[in-house]
Amino acid sequence: MKQQVADRMRGISAFYVMELLQRAKQLEREGRDVIHMEIGEPDFPTPQAVIDAGRALLKTGEVKYTAAAGLPELREAIAEHYVRQYGVKVDPGRVFITPGASGAFLLAFGISLNPGEQVMMADPCYPCNDNFVRLFNGQTHFVNVGADTEYQLTADLIAQNWRPNSKGVLAASPSNPTGTLLNGADLKYAIDQVHRLGGCFYSDEIYHGLIYDQPAATALAHGDDAFVINSFSKFFGMTGWRVGWLVVPDDFVEAAEKLAQNIFISTPTHSQHAALASFTEDNLAELERRRLEFKARRDFLYTNLLKLGFKIACKPEGAFYIYADCSAFTDNSFAFAGELLEREGVAVTPGRDFGKYRADKHIRFAYTASIDRMAEALTRLERFICR
Amino acid sequence: MKQQVADRMRGISAFYVMELLQRAKQLEREGRDVIHMEIGEPDFPTPQAVIDAGRALLKTGEVKYTAAAGLPELREAIAEHYVRQYGVKVDPGRVFITPGASGAFLLAFGISLNPGEQVMMADPCYPCNDNFVRLFNGQTHFVNVGADTEYQLTADLIAQNWRPNSKGVLAASPSNPTGTLLNGADLKYAIDQVHRLGGCFYSDEIYHGLIYDQPAATALAHGDDAFVINSFSKFFGMTGWRVGWLVVPDDFVEAAEKLAQNIFISTPTHSQHAALASFTEDNLAELERRRLEFKARRDFLYTNLLKLGFKIACKPEGAFYIYADCSAFTDNSFAFAGELLEREGVAVTPGRDFGKYRADKHIRFAYTASIDRMAEALTRLERFICR
Ligand SMILES: Cc1ncc(COP(=O)(O)O)c(C=O)c1O
Ligand SMILES: Cc1ncc(COP(=O)(O)O)c(C=O)c1O
Repeated sequence: MKQQVADRMRGISAFYVMELLQRAKQLEREGRDVIHMEIGEPDFPTPQAVIDAGRALLKTGEVKYTAAAGLPELREAIAEHYVRQYGVKVDPGRVFITPGASGAFLLAFGISLNPGEQVMMADPCYPCNDNFVRLFNGQTHFVNVGADTEYQLTADLIAQNWRPNSKGVLAASPSNPTGTLLNGADLKYAIDQVHRLGGCFYSDEIYHGLIYDQPAATALAHGDDAFVINSFSKFFGMTGWRVGWLVVPDDFVEAAEKLAQNIFISTPTHSQHAALASFTEDNLAELERRRLEFKARRDFLYTNLLKLGFKIACKPEGAFYIYADCSAFTDNSFAFAGELLEREGVAVTPGRDFGKYRADKHIRFAYTASIDRMAEALTRLERFICR
Repeated sequence: MKQQVADRMRGISAFYVMELLQRAKQLEREGRDVIHMEIGEPDFPTPQAVIDAGRALLKTGEVKYTAAAGLPELREAIAEHYVRQYGVKVDPGRVFITPGASGAFLLAFGISLNPGEQVMMADPCYPCNDNFVRLFNGQTHFVNVGADTEYQLTADLIAQNWRPNSKGVLAASPSNPTGTLLNGADLKYAIDQVHRLGGCFYSDEIYHGLIYDQPAATALAHGDDAFVINSFSKFFGMTGWRVGWLVVPDDFVEAAEKLAQNIFISTPTHSQHAALASFTEDNLAELERRRLEFKARRDFLYTNLLKLGFKIACKPEGAFYIYADCSAFTDNSFAFAGELLEREGVAVTPGRDFGKYRADKHIRFAYTASIDRMAEALTRLERFICR
């Protein structure tokens, strides 16, 4: 036996967008202007109140390990957030602070998924999902979804695709890359279906807060048995701080506590203290202003992509992405994205980063750039497709 | 199938010291004075230069995701550290910045360990080691070690205990809980043995820098094929910041890059920028002053524990722990630790947190308290054992 890479790594690929990102940086070094619409993080800086809280904590010099589950006051603040935002009561003892939603996935699958068990999820979806499952030697069961179900799994799809070795279902609402919701009764039916089948429902709610036309529903409104993954990264503007959370069912509290102790020790202390400042009235008002800016960007980009001849099967209702069908211009969206970058200096993410189903017909635009920059990108895009 | 906790969690237990810690906090709330010698983190605050660098970065507001492998300048700085400290050249492309050594373990085993494969390690050792292996459905093969091998695995022990499903060997030098080294020729023989057997050598070097009598050797001095786990937590005084690193063999670079992208996205940005300030001359001088303080504490505690009748089979040469045989006073070190806390308000860690082998005869003292406080602890300890 040689010193060998683990088998699981054969199934885990780098993100295709990384190649584009490398190339974009190269072009920028050569003096080219690149408009970045590939990046899945808000372009706004972290809100000032949060920065200030982080700096104040650092000033004390006491950046020690916290309890593995997180600062008690942050767990409480998140529980209160559920009351205020959704009218849902959550025991803070079920809230675990994690290094981002990424840490929440590690924890959720670590405590629930056995090797060989399947997790069902939509194709297209966030590329890491499948790889978290592979990390634990589980299997991902992708279910192709389209406009008819707003790119979401439904109770029926879940029942049809359930297998003896299915462990559960992962849903993200709003979805990355489509920005569509699993909301209202559909969310409830999906959760009930999974629980009827005896499985786990993993609800990725990281884009909550960034929703533009209707309030978002949390899985926690439909009982105490869902795993809810969330983060301060996106809505709260704290990507690089690495702080998120996981809410677990009662039966998993002890396991989550034990595993968090072992694999994280704790979540960055200064980031936890800073995150606490997210819930002040002033900061929430600042986040609301940013939400309105994102909404204006969505409307602008949506309207103009349609004008250019992109098809957008479902108007996105949240996150900061538009998943656009570019089959009018190409049947290879990866090559399309590459050429668009080379010729016009506009960076977007190719569909194949999000799955296989009709991936070569789609690209994802992130509206994490200002309307001015997007207007310039649209001019370049028009020139590109009319070449 | 019910919504069930994953099987691996049955083998993962909470740290026993957590119970003591809870109880210690309870006592403190009741107004009792507790001397903490159970805690595995420096009592010093983070050095000022590092704090300042963290605050300066925060001031910019730009706390965005970094590259998955970490800031290029931090990877370079660590590579330079190997040259300066050990005279060893390491390609910065093999250095991955991780959320603590904890993240380094996740990455190292994630890219190398298949379910069912064994990792060999010493009993006693750091309690999380076994649980990282369990996380990936591997098996831990504990090898009992004692004073004859300075609580370390040797080339012979490795050969004797190698099995067809062995994947590799994990060693920590200085060791937690014993503070003993695997150094010089012994380190080289151990590494060569593992590589001769075709396995992976995982070298936990998190306590490097905190060594008192002789320079420490890094596994990287003996070829490019070891996995080296390290961290800014202990020597650099940055526990709560969550930043560490993993050096991987060339053949694992691509896998490490892919997995880090997926499971971390990146390591806390402000912590990475702050860590960069660790390598300035002034800061290294401050760390040297702290090292000398730890050395004085070790000498003080070591001498006085022997006087009280504890047996210490090997004088610890590094870290900030003394692993003391208390069999003169008890054959149940867990109960001993509990009573010591109740009666005298001195908190120590019971041996059973570090394994099974002679665990009930040992407790671990952490000299992460001042000499004054330790003097008071020793007075209480004397009263306790003479009761
Ligand atoms: C759908 C989704 N879930 C989870 C994450 C993880 O984010 P973080 O770990 O920063 O919280 C992302 C990041 O892009 C995402 O898009
Ligand atoms: C031997 C050893 N390795 C690794 C770690 C993990 O530390 P961190 O994740 O803070 O770098 C510890 C912490 O106590 C330790 O004692």
